[in-house]
Amino acid sequence: MNNYISEYLQSISNICPTLTAEELQYFAQKLTLHEFAPKDFYLQAKDPQKGIAFIAKGLFRSFYINEDGNEITITFNNEGRLMGDFTSIDAPQPSRFYFQCIEPSVVILCPYEHLQDCAEKIPALEKYFRIMLEKAFLQVSNRLVGLLSNNSEEMYRQFIEENPSLATRISVSHLCSFLGVSRQTLTRIRKKILST
Amino acid sequence: MNNYISEYLQSISNICPTLTAEELQYFAQKLTLHEFAPKDFYLQAKDPQKGIAFIAKGLFRSFYINEDGNEITITFNNEGRLMGDFTSIDAPQPSRFYFQCIEPSVVILCPYEHLQDCAEKIPALEKYFRIMLEKAFLQVSNRLVGLLSNNSEEMYRQFIEENPSLATRISVSHLCSFLGVSRQTLTRIRKKILST
Repeated sequence: MNNYISEYLQSISNICPTLTAEELQYFAQKLTLHEFAPKDFYLQAKDPQKGIAFIAKGLFRSFYINEDGNEITITFNNEGRLMGDFTSIDAPQPSRFYFQCIEPSVVILCPYEHLQDCAEKIPALEKYFRIMLEKAFLQVSNRLVGLLSNNSEEMYRQFIEENPSLATRISVSHLCSFLGVSRQTLTRIRKKILST
Repeated sequence: MNNYISEYLQSISNICPTLTAEELQYFAQKLTLHEFAPKDFYLQAKDPQKGIAFIAKGLFRSFYINEDGNEITITFNNEGRLMGDFTSIDAPQPSRFYFQCIEPSVVILCPYEHLQDCAEKIPALEKYFRIMLEKAFLQVSNRLVGLLSNNSEEMYRQFIEENPSLATRISVSHLCSFLGVSRQTLTRIRKKILST
């Protein structure tokens, strides 16, 4: 299991080449590994957020339950991504979303107090957080554009283009809840795309 | 006009107290000031993004034009906020949104090449970008939640709560395009809120 942590540290080191081995070691000391089985929740809405989670292996789905009680899938988060409702490292808010495991997963958790301490002591690490936040911003703003465009075929094409490896890992019902369409509509879209 | 830049530098210094005067000076050397009149565009969709803009004074509206040709207001950006489609400092993408001036405004622009250079040379500055990105993430994810909740009254209440100073600065038509409701519906919502 410790391979996950060393691979994670290596990926941070690639992003922040000026980080010293001692700094990486200091950051690593409070990281913990957590395993999740399908249907387990990493977080439920209103849960306090204890830290930032890096998905070392597996796949999660974040969703929101609206006033009518419908689950609306917001994003799919796979290996190599951070997971959480990124409100603020310095003053984290409770999650507004549910994060549920889809495939057997391994998550590396860094508690917020440790993140704050590291951000203070290791300025070079801020670059890593900034780049991961840029990715999260892009993911959520793409989601927003998809919703606003109100074109489920285009949203599906874009999703497949951005996440080719996920297309076969996500159930039809979750994909429908992401696109906001019925199974019949998704089948129609898929047929249309295959035939062009 | 130079007061705007010194106030901006002061606000960065408050966020990153470890920045030295020399580092701030280095960052400041390539900042430029730009004035905008109502209806001017800071950016139009598909425009290349040249840098990150800080609104020193005024108010802008970002919007998206969907396939049916409708303008959908995404956010209102007032003084003290960054403005732009935050794709990546290291490899910025063309804007997906329009950014149009609502009130006479002053914007401080920092070119991307300079941001990259500063991020490289002044690690302490990364904290500033990270915190501004957290704010931008929160703004866009709140917008997403508002759209998903599909409850325009709740969206209006939340908007007023988060932006009390903006309520009187935004036209009814822009507010309708933000909430996705007709003027009649907005009037009804306002009456209901006033009476409770």
